[in-house]
Amino acid sequence: MGCVQSFRELCDRQKNTNVRKSLPAVCIVWQTAMIILFGVFIRYNEEADTHWVEHRHTKNISSDIENDFYYRYPSFQDVHVMIFVGFGFLMTFLKRYSFGAVGFNFLIAAFGLQWALLMQGWFHSLDYTDGKIKIGVENMINADFCVAGCLIAYGAVLGKVSAVQLLVMTLFGVTLFAVEEYIILNVIHARDAGGSMVIHTFGAYYGLSISWMLYRPNLDQSDRLHGSVYHSDVFAMIGTLFLWMFWPSFNSAITDHGDGQHRAAINTYLALAATVLTTVAISSLFQKHGKLDMVHIQNATLAGGVAVGTAAEFMLMPYGALIVGFCCGIISTLGYVYLSPFMEKYLKIQDTCGIHNLHAMPGVIGGIVGAITAASATESVYGVEGLINTFDFKEDFKDMVPSRQGGHQAAGLCVALCFAVGGGIAVGCILRLPIWGDPADDNCFDDETYWEVPDEEEDVPPILHYNNHMRNKDV
Amino acid sequence: MGCVQSFRELCDRQKNTNVRKSLPAVCIVWQTAMIILFGVFIRYNEEADTHWVEHRHTKNISSDIENDFYYRYPSFQDVHVMIFVGFGFLMTFLKRYSFGAVGFNFLIAAFGLQWALLMQGWFHSLDYTDGKIKIGVENMINADFCVAGCLIAYGAVLGKVSAVQLLVMTLFGVTLFAVEEYIILNVIHARDAGGSMVIHTFGAYYGLSISWMLYRPNLDQSDRLHGSVYHSDVFAMIGTLFLWMFWPSFNSAITDHGDGQHRAAINTYLALAATVLTTVAISSLFQKHGKLDMVHIQNATLAGGVAVGTAAEFMLMPYGALIVGFCCGIISTLGYVYLSPFMEKYLKIQDTCGIHNLHAMPGVIGGIVGAITAASATESVYGVEGLINTFDFKEDFKDMVPSRQGGHQAAGLCVALCFAVGGGIAVGCILRLPIWGDPADDNCFDDETYWEVPDEEEDVPPILHYNNHMRNKDV
Amino acid sequence: MGCVQSFRELCDRQKNTNVRKSLPAVCIVWQTAMIILFGVFIRYNEEADTHWVEHRHTKNISSDIENDFYYRYPSFQDVHVMIFVGFGFLMTFLKRYSFGAVGFNFLIAAFGLQWALLMQGWFHSLDYTDGKIKIGVENMINADFCVAGCLIAYGAVLGKVSAVQLLVMTLFGVTLFAVEEYIILNVIHARDAGGSMVIHTFGAYYGLSISWMLYRPNLDQSDRLHGSVYHSDVFAMIGTLFLWMFWPSFNSAITDHGDGQHRAAINTYLALAATVLTTVAISSLFQKHGKLDMVHIQNATLAGGVAVGTAAEFMLMPYGALIVGFCCGIISTLGYVYLSPFMEKYLKIQDTCGIHNLHAMPGVIGGIVGAITAASATESVYGVEGLINTFDFKEDFKDMVPSRQGGHQAAGLCVALCFAVGGGIAVGCILRLPIWGDPADDNCFDDETYWEVPDEEEDVPPILHYNNHMRNKDV
Repeated sequence: MGCVQSFRELCDRQKNTNVRKSLPAVCIVWQTAMIILFGVFIRYNEEADTHWVEHRHTKNISSDIENDFYYRYPSFQDVHVMIFVGFGFLMTFLKRYSFGAVGFNFLIAAFGLQWALLMQGWFHSLDYTDGKIKIGVENMINADFCVAGCLIAYGAVLGKVSAVQLLVMTLFGVTLFAVEEYIILNVIHARDAGGSMVIHTFGAYYGLSISWMLYRPNLDQSDRLHGSVYHSDVFAMIGTLFLWMFWPSFNSAITDHGDGQHRAAINTYLALAATVLTTVAISSLFQKHGKLDMVHIQNATLAGGVAVGTAAEFMLMPYGALIVGFCCGIISTLGYVYLSPFMEKYLKIQDTCGIHNLHAMPGVIGGIVGAITAASATESVYGVEGLINTFDFKEDFKDMVPSRQGGHQAAGLCVALCFAVGGGIAVGCILRLPIWGDPADDNCFDDETYWEVPDEEEDVPPILHYNNHMRNKDV
Repeated sequence: MGCVQSFRELCDRQKNTNVRKSLPAVCIVWQTAMIILFGVFIRYNEEADTHWVEHRHTKNISSDIENDFYYRYPSFQDVHVMIFVGFGFLMTFLKRYSFGAVGFNFLIAAFGLQWALLMQGWFHSLDYTDGKIKIGVENMINADFCVAGCLIAYGAVLGKVSAVQLLVMTLFGVTLFAVEEYIILNVIHARDAGGSMVIHTFGAYYGLSISWMLYRPNLDQSDRLHGSVYHSDVFAMIGTLFLWMFWPSFNSAITDHGDGQHRAAINTYLALAATVLTTVAISSLFQKHGKLDMVHIQNATLAGGVAVGTAAEFMLMPYGALIVGFCCGIISTLGYVYLSPFMEKYLKIQDTCGIHNLHAMPGVIGGIVGAITAASATESVYGVEGLINTFDFKEDFKDMVPSRQGGHQAAGLCVALCFAVGGGIAVGCILRLPIWGDPADDNCFDDETYWEVPDEEEDVPPILHYNNHMRNKDV
Repeated sequence: MGCVQSFRELCDRQKNTNVRKSLPAVCIVWQTAMIILFGVFIRYNEEADTHWVEHRHTKNISSDIENDFYYRYPSFQDVHVMIFVGFGFLMTFLKRYSFGAVGFNFLIAAFGLQWALLMQGWFHSLDYTDGKIKIGVENMINADFCVAGCLIAYGAVLGKVSAVQLLVMTLFGVTLFAVEEYIILNVIHARDAGGSMVIHTFGAYYGLSISWMLYRPNLDQSDRLHGSVYHSDVFAMIGTLFLWMFWPSFNSAITDHGDGQHRAAINTYLALAATVLTTVAISSLFQKHGKLDMVHIQNATLAGGVAVGTAAEFMLMPYGALIVGFCCGIISTLGYVYLSPFMEKYLKIQDTCGIHNLHAMPGVIGGIVGAITAASATESVYGVEGLINTFDFKEDFKDMVPSRQGGHQAAGLCVALCFAVGGGIAVGCILRLPIWGDPADDNCFDDETYWEVPDEEEDVPPILHYNNHMRNKDV
């Protein structure tokens, strides 16, 4: 702790937020690297290649509709909306950081998904016959999933970092994610369709660790901007609702064809519905006069979707999903009321969006629920074939039993936590270097720092002619 | 009428809008009840259960893609967006009731869909062998449909009731809906794929009856808030457009696989397009200087989708759909211009969103169009098998003929109206009890009553540091 | 040029923006014409007709899921969102023209799609046995595509024309589009799945030519309104993101079943991701202090989707898609920085939304990329059957070879340019007639001209009661 502190002081020099060299350099160089790596490694898989028609004959596939595209593309588009509109708009709640919320979210997601296709491809989709990664719609979904982890982490540091820092954070985040995911899903053979552990627990603790490393003792100098205005809260509800509505697609996007996708969607739909009611209950209960707080409605209502991520494809049962949602709405809202202020004051973790309440705690709960549900699976409930399909008890794992699977699930959760905290602290160290253009403490949560912000003259006198910032003209 | 009036006066006591006890209590107790009832009654159906793989073999289903999930899930997600973003944002037009519009819409939809799964399940999906309700994606769509009825009713009382009242209204609304739906679809054997009668007519007259019971003679005391501002009108257009775009999915979501879904989507797409043009025409014609009114564009453009709900799956023909849309755009816009002020002044029905113009009249028209289209169906147009499939002339109804089907359709419309008005008046009585925390007449349309609203300091001086409402900190 | 100038002066009389007669007249008459033409010409195709069940047996189609509806409807809905929310909200960036942006976009799209169904139907879907146009989901997608061309053109004249002018522009635009499309796709046999040439090049140069004809030398009198405010820029990001996210569906909506749709989606997804990074890089590089400009983020990030339109279904390879996106992000952003001011000053083309940078240049690039990719196609990469399927080397074109196909692609691009510029100038002439109700130079970009705009009293004192514009009451 002492050495961390001194390292921190070392890094806190005069801030220079001009990123006119670093940001273009990073974008151009990294994008060029992506093109080269894609050229060397990435090809279409047999379902997206023009040889599909021959592949169909060889594999005796009766119809084009059997192409995985038709199983997964609608879910992919829903997930895509969650990543760009969902996460982007959820973070627009700050009165003067909507450009940064939506815009930087857009930037890091667009970079992250390319890097994720490579990283995840090397682990999961490498064709050893020719050394190429073969991609299709499932890779696109997984890339979006991977990006989700980094966007969750962005929520913790929203308004306090530069775009360059975010890109660095995403580069390492995606790398860590791919390794962690490989260990959890392939080595440990845990199941995690909706990513309670792999995405949410990892992403949230990764972000919180970074935020802890980047602790700003004088952040209260930006207090004037550290809140919402009426319409920014409405914008944030766009993000909330698109996340909430499409979460069933998120949790079912890469589950098994047929009953797997069907069941995962139902479970998520139910868990989220229950969360809304308990969130409202607790929000009202803990405010004077019983008024509701938009922060809770915007965030805690989503906790059920996080917590049901691992178990969504299991036979959790509809009432099981409701119970998970019920508990998470309460826990997450209480987190906003009590835990966030505590963490900021005593643990020195400044969590702008409260991702600890929305992703970290529900993610851990999701991991535990998944372990319990897996451990208590029986052939009488799942059927012989159903048990094998659901838990993928095949090949190397054909002797697996549900109780041991429960243990593996728990082990997966631990791996996610270790990678997140360890990785987050390491990346946080790097991000403290005084070269990234982050804002000073009294400049946080302010779009002026990184964006051309239009002059605010909302009520323009209708006749009077004066000069004004013109689009396309005096750029 | 006299006794109604005296009952009204009896109930009008001093208003107390503190719902800190009642709202959490209702949410927690009802959600707990849902968990118990789901535990007792609700299970996955054979397409969402892990036994699907065995079911496939038994039923000789060739591929996972035949799972109903792939027929209906994309439509389900579109409907889901309509319910939460469509209805939610459509009601954000008021200058200071956007939190209530989106937030309460979210709350009652999340509760309503759970209760709808149970109520509709008992009537439609009960497996008599084990006494369980078996749910799948079609149940989720139907639950969303059922919720739509209650959200339409919310439109009439927007800004004038508390969240507790809305929950009570939804509880009874869903119950009435499920009974009415069972009678119309199963007993009377009317067809109503897009719910012109079952959803829109019922929902609208249910809401209007409640609003009549809750008449506020001094509502003009809230006039200062009873209008829009520039950006609230733009937010409302988000709702309008998502409703408008996804209405083809709404009307085709539960129609027959294959041509049924295909035709319903085409008819709805066309009807809505025609409505836009006539709405613009009438809006311009009835304003001085030919200016357009956002209220009309936001609402009346949707009337064609409502009116084509029943007949969308029939052979209405593309031009038939256009004619329905043409008429409804005119009628609905004229309703906003003439009928709404008349209803408020003389019939004492205060209809905040004008649901009478958007849902009630077009819903009734839709029922009539459905009856006429059904009555005029012929084997030469539909084909022998087509006629049987479209109107479901099977089992108990295998001797049905189109002309009689037309009569049944008309009977269905009457049932919807009776349930709506009768149920609405009864529920309105309950909601007048002075225990629900509704706002006083000079406090309507104001988010301050039920929400923590951020201080409005849109133009924050960029350097000056003063204290402000902080997120996560002084909660 | 001289005669054009004198014609211009002839037309510039006193402006009268009252469209109370012309707008309703055009809407009602044209919609009535649509009903009559639909009655005469348009029927359901065999997949949307009740005879589908017999058609299935005849054609030996094994399952309802083979209905084209299930291949294309999810893509259709995504395209539909792009048309109405994507284009509509993208144009809301102006501080006081959001109603016009969303509302007129809505109007002309709703009219255009009906007229497009007819025009495209006569060329592509006419059943010569009975003289009827048979429509299904693919026609709906194509109608939306056709409308997209006109909405792109709207971007050039945004804020400077009346709704009547827009309808006239759409009527001729759709007509020209259908002819041009028929020549390019059927006569020349160029491939253009995502419409780089057919939609974007045509639409953009059509709009720019019209804007050139409607040049307003004194447009600076509206400078006070010719910029954005903070929240209007956030609204515009809704449009940007929905366009960006759903562009893979746009480019894959009408490609071949199976690998065609799959590959087009992947290519577009990748191209768009690369564009975001280079747009950010150039935007930051060309602003002092390295700040980002929302205009670039809102628009240039989409250029990759345009430019990959033609080649998306070819074996462009993932790295090829990235390269296209990389270049277009740079070119499009530089266009906003240098070209738009140049075009306004020296070429007298006032391009409100910068469609030259977003659609015209990337569209031409897309045509060229398509030609090169087609010309370099080989059997070793595509496979024998793959080559035939991808380029449709069948029937009349069964002797075609890739190198010649490349030439045909280039010819297609030229046709699109000729139709756009020629048609645009002609339509521009018509629109200069002083009968359409367009605004004066000091009244542009102002919703007050054509809309009832609510009084702006954002911060309403909570107790004080005064009268205000009321909804539904004093209409």
